[in-house]
Order: sequence, then structure tokens, then C-alpha cells
Amino acid sequence: MTHLVDSGQRSLGVTFPNEHEATIQVWAPLAKYVAIKIYGHPTALPLTCEELGYWSLTTSQIKPGDLYTFKLDGQEEYPDPVSLCQPQGVHGPSQAVDTGIFRWTDDSWKNPALESYVLYELHTGTFTEEGTFQSLESKLDYLKALGVTAIEIMPVAQFSDSRNWGYDGVYTYAVQNSYGGANGLQHLVDTCHKKGIAVVLDVVYNHFGPEGNYLGNFGPYLTDKYCTPWGKAVNFDDAWCDGVRRYVLENALMWFRDFHIDALRLDAVHAIKDFSPVHILQELRQKVDELMAATGRQHYLIVENDLNDPRYIDPLSEHGYGMDAQWNDEFHHALRVAAGEATTGYYADFDGLNHLAKSYKDAYVYDGQYSVVRNQFFGGKAANNPGKQFVVFSQNHDQVGNRKLGERSSQLYSFDALKLLAGAVLVSPYIPLLFMGEEWGETSPFFYFVSHTEPELVEAVRQGRKEEFASFHSNGEDVPDPQSRETYQQAKIQWKLIDQKPHRILLHYYQTLLALRRELPALAHLDRTRLNVDTDPKTETLVLHRWHDDQHVVCLMN
Amino acid sequence: MTHLVDSGQRSLGVTFPNEHEATIQVWAPLAKYVAIKIYGHPTALPLTCEELGYWSLTTSQIKPGDLYTFKLDGQEEYPDPVSLCQPQGVHGPSQAVDTGIFRWTDDSWKNPALESYVLYELHTGTFTEEGTFQSLESKLDYLKALGVTAIEIMPVAQFSDSRNWGYDGVYTYAVQNSYGGANGLQHLVDTCHKKGIAVVLDVVYNHFGPEGNYLGNFGPYLTDKYCTPWGKAVNFDDAWCDGVRRYVLENALMWFRDFHIDALRLDAVHAIKDFSPVHILQELRQKVDELMAATGRQHYLIVENDLNDPRYIDPLSEHGYGMDAQWNDEFHHALRVAAGEATTGYYADFDGLNHLAKSYKDAYVYDGQYSVVRNQFFGGKAANNPGKQFVVFSQNHDQVGNRKLGERSSQLYSFDALKLLAGAVLVSPYIPLLFMGEEWGETSPFFYFVSHTEPELVEAVRQGRKEEFASFHSNGEDVPDPQSRETYQQAKIQWKLIDQKPHRILLHYYQTLLALRRELPALAHLDRTRLNVDTDPKTETLVLHRWHDDQHVVCLMN
Repeated sequence: MTHLVDSGQRSLGVTFPNEHEATIQVWAPLAKYVAIKIYGHPTALPLTCEELGYWSLTTSQIKPGDLYTFKLDGQEEYPDPVSLCQPQGVHGPSQAVDTGIFRWTDDSWKNPALESYVLYELHTGTFTEEGTFQSLESKLDYLKALGVTAIEIMPVAQFSDSRNWGYDGVYTYAVQNSYGGANGLQHLVDTCHKKGIAVVLDVVYNHFGPEGNYLGNFGPYLTDKYCTPWGKAVNFDDAWCDGVRRYVLENALMWFRDFHIDALRLDAVHAIKDFSPVHILQELRQKVDELMAATGRQHYLIVENDLNDPRYIDPLSEHGYGMDAQWNDEFHHALRVAAGEATTGYYADFDGLNHLAKSYKDAYVYDGQYSVVRNQFFGGKAANNPGKQFVVFSQNHDQVGNRKLGERSSQLYSFDALKLLAGAVLVSPYIPLLFMGEEWGETSPFFYFVSHTEPELVEAVRQGRKEEFASFHSNGEDVPDPQSRETYQQAKIQWKLIDQKPHRILLHYYQTLLALRRELPALAHLDRTRLNVDTDPKTETLVLHRWHDDQHVVCLMN
Repeated sequence: MTHLVDSGQRSLGVTFPNEHEATIQVWAPLAKYVAIKIYGHPTALPLTCEELGYWSLTTSQIKPGDLYTFKLDGQEEYPDPVSLCQPQGVHGPSQAVDTGIFRWTDDSWKNPALESYVLYELHTGTFTEEGTFQSLESKLDYLKALGVTAIEIMPVAQFSDSRNWGYDGVYTYAVQNSYGGANGLQHLVDTCHKKGIAVVLDVVYNHFGPEGNYLGNFGPYLTDKYCTPWGKAVNFDDAWCDGVRRYVLENALMWFRDFHIDALRLDAVHAIKDFSPVHILQELRQKVDELMAATGRQHYLIVENDLNDPRYIDPLSEHGYGMDAQWNDEFHHALRVAAGEATTGYYADFDGLNHLAKSYKDAYVYDGQYSVVRNQFFGGKAANNPGKQFVVFSQNHDQVGNRKLGERSSQLYSFDALKLLAGAVLVSPYIPLLFMGEEWGETSPFFYFVSHTEPELVEAVRQGRKEEFASFHSNGEDVPDPQSRETYQQAKIQWKLIDQKPHRILLHYYQTLLALRRELPALAHLDRTRLNVDTDPKTETLVLHRWHDDQHVVCLMN
């Protein structure tokens, strides 16, 4: 179905190809009648049924800023599945947006090579007191000085109310209104580029959030062929899948083309089930290649994936899915166990030092061995995949937030251990990722938080969290309430700590390490063939030796 | 987990590596205690727990012919999941079998090239009045004279009682006792080989039958990660999958090595869901390659697959699954519509003549086009896959038996049309398959039949059949009772027809066509590049032109 997707322009939803007219296109393959209701207009305008379940209309009656809904079969009204703005939240009408209005000033921006990426993962709502893109902009100089080359923004697709990690988004195309909406995001990216910082956006194509999800009224977005942690799977290969595939492809292209996003981080692609001859990720790679050829701009596709299957990051020419890079959770697990983490849960598969050494050399720890946690021989070898294809970290939103008490490393390890963790990541031959505030040893917890408006759902989420931790600790009674505003407020990072000891010292340490990594060719390259690693179990020491030409760097970690 | 599977010998179940001892190995990863009860011995013998959930014992107390069960956790007794014989049916004890006892006399046999295969699909129970391997042997001379080079036997894994197509088998390793058991099958294969006929066995790795299925008591053979037409999927990639993968791998190897089977026909592999880095079919290919390298014998892997995805038949070196060939149902559908079949159900996707022409040239009809039946763009291109990778037919057990009234072509088409159908298949650049009796225009229906012993199951099957056809015809009331012995008896082919007109004429026609196909180099090769096909819609004529060197054959079909 690739031919339906034009990488040069979005055609789903409401678009403004010229000043005088809007084109409207909505996919509703099982509807018998579709009309658009534009607020302020007395009657709904009928759309024309086209091939493959698409309905369309060209009209001068809708302008940017207008509110609208779609009326299906003359019955219920629903927001647009391809809404770019939900000014009244997930249950309200959609608002037409012309992404072409923004005046970009980043012409001279060039997305740097993946090798030079230093990622900084942040959650817009808790990164600053105001929790907006605008306030985020005020921190860019700080990040630049720290040595960060790319910010990675947790998902911004519209979710219920104003408090959410972002993985409950239900409007894949709409930028969260409380963060600043589409225009706010465009302005942020433009500013980042002017300051020489790349922008990575976290996007979720493996499920849709639970509240305000009206997609099912429009078409078979889900299939019961596969079961995922969220129930039915997003429909990438069952009947009517092409409408869903296009929904995802046009979305990814929109972020790159209309928002100048430099890279996407695709959430948990192991939960994307697709047995088509061309996997949705392969098709995405093809379309993004098309876009890059047309614009001359570089964009990266980075996946979160826990399958240890190099097929995802192998090039299309090798029958891979062609993703540029992937998160490597196993480096994190090995590192944390080496630092003293109890070997419960998924940590039970890791022995610490030896596995960390393996991860420095082979990226995956499990590349064919038997995993007692998974109860199966697990993974494949990534010997042909260069270091720039792996993102590593000592903590991230998930690893922190999925702890019952949301403890960051600062609450779990000694000050010296924090420096060790930082060093382990930053001298690695992989792309490092910091989680907001880790560079100064932020002390506030990063809890799981939501702000659903449906009481049953709130209760279900509360119970779910309690049950998740009941087995770990007593009865789960002391799990922070995810719905409480206080839980959210506590997650905000405390910028004031920067000026306090020992935080200031740790920050300086990160800055220095990042500078070394940048400036020493032996550390800057991400070639795992110029690397040796040894461990001494007696002294619990890991020796990492990296070199470039005559330059040798030996890192001792104990 | 490949390293656990030794292609040189079966190690699961009861084996007799030497005259004095048996080794017993059973996979029961969640059991706390496993013992074997050998009938006639006063006490059960405990097995020792080994790695990865295997339990084993070496003992002189069990001999070929002994009955036995496994006792789990000191509680219930169950037949062996790897039973080679169920003399008292699916609910009874297993019987130890030494496959090494059979004296093979087929040393000089050489499996012919796939290009020369002419397949004859038969159901052992209804192929002869007696319904046994032994009686089947008496027909081999007839098949040889007809021009058949390989018989394809519908599944023989032990099923409930004595009447079943074979797809409800629950003992993947046990040869149906009412057909003649393991020894009967070995004798049949040996006899076939001496007569110069290859043997293809239909095997089912995508589900297990409903009655007598005790596998779940031994281990997680199924997973709810995927949903199939039969419910939960066979567990090829979830926790504990390695035991299931080994169960399948050792089984396939057993048929080749211990029964001298020439090719396996793997049922509906599109229902095998496996997202492992190495797909189970890839692993099977590797192990069969290992076996072939060791023995010097050739074995083929042929799959039934409705995904039109060449990945399944592409070589391992091209990151394919390495299957030798696949059934091509779309050739059948296009041919049947060209012959006048009503375009209901899955036939709605086919236009007849043009699609048939496309299938002669491209194998798949849908190789990227939109399918209105599937509601999706469907399939990939098989341009690089030679004709010998596709099995074609004008009817088969499924296409006949899944009609409400089980009509063979002889009941649906004129005598001349039967000749046209035969010609269309036999002049194709693909491997032809005949369904038993089609060569004489057998008139008996081939119904769906079962002989379950559990009343609820019988009723469920009856209802299922009625509902399946309720939408096609009135109310489904006149669907033959699948459980009735009469339904089964009616499905037996009538050998007496051979001597009657017009059957005798049709048989001669098949024989002549098969001889032409064998003897004319322009028809014998399966190279689609030496082929042209044209259609004339006005006269509803298809012109197939094939050539080799100076020899040209033009087939006009109208």
C-alpha cells in the first residue's frame, strides 16, 4: 500500500494545500456515511466515499483554528483520528492546524552523525516547573554546556488531561495541548536547531491509550490475532491493515517533515506484530529514505526492542528492518547488577561484571544463551552491528519509574557509585543516554502518574500498580497514587540542586567525562573492534581498553 | 537450542540404542516428579531430572512392545507425548517401538529431483476398501503406470478412533494404529522405493487435535501470545518454547531418518507464529541439511502456506526460511473460476482467465495487489523462485472436502471440462498434484469425517460444520454428519470405475498427458522464463507457449 503514502506531504486528516481550500480525508472503511461538522456552521458537510475506505472533501469552509468533529452514519460525532490539536482534551472536538504556517529559521541545521549523539531523555511536564515546551527552551543552553547533543522527548501525543508519561496518548498526530501544542513543538525544535541540539521524539505505535480512544469507531485499528500486554494488537497485517499502516507511516513522516524532528524513538517495537511480506518497520524505512532523498535532510529511526534480534537493525539490503539503532536494556541490567542491584525480577538473568564486559564487546548479553528469566534460549548475535546502533544508559524513565518508589540512582547508590555508573556509560562504545537530572544526582522520585477523568479507569490503574508491586513488597499499600497531583509534582526535577553540593560536583564530573568522550578519538569512535575488556573477579574490577591510532585509553571500574 | 537436537538419532521418548537397554527421555519442565509405569511391572520407575525440564532414565526393564505411561507428580498417568504407538487409541497407554528393527531393502533408492515430482495425494483410510498401508501397497503398480512419481499421504499421526482426515492427530510421533502403525508405514515406504515411487508425508505442526491431547499436562506446548483458527498457538517463541521446538524438530528428522520419508508436506505454516531470531522453519532446514550431509540422502520440505510470501521458500542464504517448495492455492482458485466456479467466498478475488495466466507466469496471483476478500494489499513477488518451488492442482482434499457436499470436480464440471482442468495442471511449469481418484473422475464425495469418542466434542464438530455452511445454503441442515460411519464409507474411492466409461477414457487421458509432460523437454522443465502466456477474452481462450531449445509446445485452453 506504500503507493498511497506520499512522503512529500500528509494527506490524512485536515490539510491546507493552499490558502483558499482545505482537503479533508478520513479512513472509515466500515462507515456508510461520513460528514464533518465544523463548529459555527449550521449543517454538517458530507464526505465522498473513495477507494479502500477513505472519505474525502475539498472545501473552503474550514480554516486553521476551526473546531470540528466527524459524524459517522448520521449518528455519533467523534474527534478526528488524525487530529493535530485537541484544545479541550481527548474527549473534545478537534481543531484544524496548518503546520505550514510556522516560519522555520533552521535552514543551516544539519543533523549530526549518529556517532556523535549524546541523548538526554526528558519528560516535558516534569522537566520544568511550568512543564511546557517554552519553559524547556530556557534550559537548552544548560544542556548544550553539559555536552548533550540531542534531547529525547517522551511522547507528546495528546493524552487525558495534563499528567501522563505519554504512553497513554490516543491522538498520535496531536501534540499535547498543555505542553504547548503543535506550534510549541515546532518552536522548540527550531530553537534547538539554532543552538545546535538535535531533537528525538518518542512515538508509540504498539498500542493506543485507554481514555479518549475513538479509533475503533472509525476502523479496525486493532486485531485479535495477537495478544500484547495492552490486549489486542495494533492491526499491521490483518484485514484492513493498510489504513492502520498508512496512519503510522504518515505520522512518522509528519514529525520529520513538518516538525523537523531529527530522530524518532519507537516505543517497544517487540509488541508490533506483523507477519506481512514487508514488515511495517521496513516500509517505514523505505518511506523515510524517500523523504531524505527528496529533502537532503538526515533522519534516524531508533527502536526500543527487547528481542535481541539484530534483524531489526540490519539494513534492508540484508533483509533487516533497517532501523538505525536500538535501545540496549541489557547493558543497563548488567551494569546495575555489577553496581549491586539485587538479582530479582529480570535482573536474575545477570551476573554483573562478566555480563557487563560481554555487553561492552557484544552489545547483547543474551545472544543465544539460555535465559532463566525468559525460560528459553534467547537472542541472536550482533557482531556485524556497529556501536552507533546501540543506545545505553544507567537509568531511564522506565527503569526509574517502574520501581515502586520511583527511586533514581541517587537514592540507591553511594555518591562514588553514581560516578562509576556515569563513567561506565560514557566510556562505552555506544550512544549514551542520560535521564533528566541524573547529571546532578536528582533526588526526587520519578513515579508513574496519570490524570484520567474516568473514575473506573483511575481505579483500575491504581489497582494495577498495587498488584504490580504486591509481590515485591508486603501488600503494595504504600504505592504512590498515580492519579494524585502530588505524585506528579514530586516527579519534577529540582533545578536548585545544581548549586548545591554534592550535586554540583557530580554535574561537573558528567561535564568533564562528556568533554573527554568528545575530544579523545579513542573514546569518540564507536568501533567495537578497537576495544578490549577484561574482568578480575577477585577485585571486582573491569578493565576497558579502547584505542585509536596511537591513543590508548584504559578505564578501570571497581 | 539446536545443539540439543542430534540429527543422527531421536532422543525424546523411549529409544533402544542397543539390545540391552532403553533410554527414556520426557520433557516435563513444570513437574516435580516423573516416573514411568511399565505394564506388567509392579512399581513405577522414577526418572531423573536433568537440565531444561528433561527427565531421563536408562533401564533394561522396558522392551519393544511393552505398554507404558508416565506418572506426573505421583498423580495422574498419561501416555507419552512422544509415543510411537497407541495400540488402544489416543486415551490408552503408549507402546514402546524400536524403529531400528525394520530391515530396509531400499539401499539403491535415490529421491528424484523435485522437478520430476508428480504428486498423488491420498487418504489412507479411504484410498482402499481396507484402508491400510498394506492394501495401499497393492495400488502402487497402478500409480506407477499412471505416471505418478510420489505419493503424498495425508497425516497419519494417531487420532481418535479410526476415521479422520488426519489433522486432528494428537500423537505427532505415533503412526495411526488402524492404518498399520509404524511398521506398516516403514514397509510401505520400503515397497514404494523398490517400485521407484517417492513418499511424501503430511505433518501438522501448527496445532494439536482436540481429543486425547495430554500434552498440556507435560509442558507449555501452547501459548496465548497468538490466536489461530484452533485457539492458542503452538509455542514456538514464548517461555519454554525450546522443548516444543525440539519436539517438532526431532519429529521431522525421525520421518526422514527412521521411516525413509522423502519429503514432508507441512500443514498450514501460516498458522505457525514465531518471532524468534531463527524461525522454527529455518531451524528445521538447518537440521535437515545436517541430516542430508550425514546420510547423503535427499529430503524435501514442502509447505502449505497462504501468505504469498516468498520468504518461506527463499534460501537461508537470502534470509529466507529455506523451504524447498510450497502449495500454490491461487493457481487452483484462478483455474476453478476460469472453469466457471461461482465467485463466492475466497473465489471472489479471482477473475478466471487473466489470473490463471498470471499464475502460470508469476506463481502468485496476488503479489502486492489489493485483495477484496482479505481487505488488504496482499503478497510479495516470487520472481526469483523457480517453478519447482510450487505445487499446483485442480482439486485436493481441502478444496473438495471443505465444500458442504464434498463434491469432486467430476460432480461439478462436464467431462470435457475435467480434461481441461487436468491439462491446465499438467502442462504447467509447476509440480502437479492429483487427488486420489481424480484421474478417473471419481464420483464419490469426499466429506469431512471424524470418529471422536467424546459426545460433547462430536456435537461441537457437528454444529461447527452446520454453521460453516449455514450462510452458503439455506440452514446447513443437510450437511452430512461428520461422525457417521456412512459419511466415511461414502468417501472411499471406487476402483471398479476404472473399467467403466467414461472413467476409463479420462484415466487414459491423464496417463497420456503425464507421459507427454515427462517426455517432452519443453514441458518437463520448470523454468518460467521459457514460457509465454496470452489470453483472448473474446473467445475465453488461454494460450500457453513453452519451449526448450528447438522444441515448442503451444497449449490452447478454452
